[in-house]
Amino acid sequence: VGLIAVDWGTSSLRGALLDDAGRVLEEKTAPRGILTVPAGDFAAVFDSIFAAWMQRAGSFCLISGMAGSQQGWAEAPYETCPAGLADLARQLCWIDRGRIAIVPGLRDERGGVPDVMRGEEVQIFGAMRLTGMTTGLFVLPGTHNKWAAVREGRVTGFRTCMTGEFYSVLSQHSILARTLQADAPLDEAAFLRGVACTGNGEGLLHNAFGARTLGLFQRMPSSALTSYLSGILIGEELRTQPLQGIRDVVLIGAPALTRRYALALKTVGIDASALGAEATWAGAYALHAVLQDGDSS
Amino acid sequence: VGLIAVDWGTSSLRGALLDDAGRVLEEKTAPRGILTVPAGDFAAVFDSIFAAWMQRAGSFCLISGMAGSQQGWAEAPYETCPAGLADLARQLCWIDRGRIAIVPGLRDERGGVPDVMRGEEVQIFGAMRLTGMTTGLFVLPGTHNKWAAVREGRVTGFRTCMTGEFYSVLSQHSILARTLQADAPLDEAAFLRGVACTGNGEGLLHNAFGARTLGLFQRMPSSALTSYLSGILIGEELRTQPLQGIRDVVLIGAPALTRRYALALKTVGIDASALGAEATWAGAYALHAVLQDGDSS
Repeated sequence: VGLIAVDWGTSSLRGALLDDAGRVLEEKTAPRGILTVPAGDFAAVFDSIFAAWMQRAGSFCLISGMAGSQQGWAEAPYETCPAGLADLARQLCWIDRGRIAIVPGLRDERGGVPDVMRGEEVQIFGAMRLTGMTTGLFVLPGTHNKWAAVREGRVTGFRTCMTGEFYSVLSQHSILARTLQADAPLDEAAFLRGVACTGNGEGLLHNAFGARTLGLFQRMPSSALTSYLSGILIGEELRTQPLQGIRDVVLIGAPALTRRYALALKTVGIDASALGAEATWAGAYALHAVLQDGDSS
Repeated sequence: VGLIAVDWGTSSLRGALLDDAGRVLEEKTAPRGILTVPAGDFAAVFDSIFAAWMQRAGSFCLISGMAGSQQGWAEAPYETCPAGLADLARQLCWIDRGRIAIVPGLRDERGGVPDVMRGEEVQIFGAMRLTGMTTGLFVLPGTHNKWAAVREGRVTGFRTCMTGEFYSVLSQHSILARTLQADAPLDEAAFLRGVACTGNGEGLLHNAFGARTLGLFQRMPSSALTSYLSGILIGEELRTQPLQGIRDVVLIGAPALTRRYALALKTVGIDASALGAEATWAGAYALHAVLQDGDSS
């Protein structure tokens, strides 16, 4: 049987065709995030990209991500933490029974405030499979970062941090946009200075202003200010995580981001390993294996 | 002599004509913040608004705010904290000697990162005059809030918090914009729930996401989410200020903002009093009095 794994997010869509051993035979990406798809057009967009793969005998497709949201193809439920792969398998949202399904998201709650993820759950289960680590901390940087605690193969809880989106709106729409050089490459020294600054206890709302004044007084070149702001934000994020006693962290995301988190985590004595898109494919493969076991039992 | 006090900021311009006792005879506002004024046009814009006042015998004008920045009429210096009124008087940036001057800003520095204000210093000295409080904490909410410590009539140090700008960019440009009702009036209960939430120690980057999920799960109406986000931001700001042992705080700013800070400060046992534009006029009057004393000595 050929497994098709699709990560259908807000702004982009990625898919992979896997063989029976979970190896990637082919990958596709398309700028068809759910925001670009009018309601009712999801099936047509899916066909336009994956029809050839789906025509293979026995093809089966698992879709994760925002395609399962209210604004997506069909609304998949949220599984409540703690949750394992078997819980996801039981709550699939079928688009075409036996052929196409959307994977449920996860939800957690603390202090009366819910938290949610869609798509990252598949990456986390995939990362467990690829690393063999089934108890620990998994961090998924992106627009809305997820910090997920895992114990014995189940996601016990998680927190979202809007770090990526704060970086985006501050560097594009705030006064900082006037002096930042948005497309500057990572300046490690400036980044680590930002991370270190957050230890002053003065908070993000104050420390972010340093990315303005350091430029104003020519203490830092505009090419370094973006890295400094990034360090201020990621340092703040780390400062509010329960990292005491944590030794190993698995980062999952784009290399440009996971590299920054690895650098920042190193400053608090944590060695992080990093995975990319392969975590999504491995997660879909692991979920598919659970479904097949369920069928045969 | 007639004193003309002008607060010329980034996005707006306000002026007042004061009599010899510091009473406001007339006020003007114009949508001519420095961002609307091409370099070289400041004198013409000033004349178009204040020519009639300036024609009175003995007229003298003190301008504070971003008109003294690099992008303003002329670059006024920054006085280094601690600084008193006499320090400002000594460093005036004269546009027309004896007739028009720009008041210097203030700067402070901590951990190698500078901090600056332009315009708020005049409001702080005015608030001291109006309240009689010459030692204490003065808080000026706005786009870039200032928290200024004052001892015996001198500003000993201050911190900027970008709280107003964070609120603006998050509510207009982030994912929160999709569910927030931007023009909703203050919902005190939702605001105070946001303030209380920041006590969870999970940080702004996480807590802000609650303004998304509480809407997603219909736990809070969209009309309340703006107030909740405002509470999350102002609560975070308070959490990073050294408020231990502080009993009295003077707030200076627009009533819609100072009201929120007064509500939030009450939750930590602090009674705050509030002043508006009158602080600017009183500060210019006090500075003018110092200049006259200097002339006569």
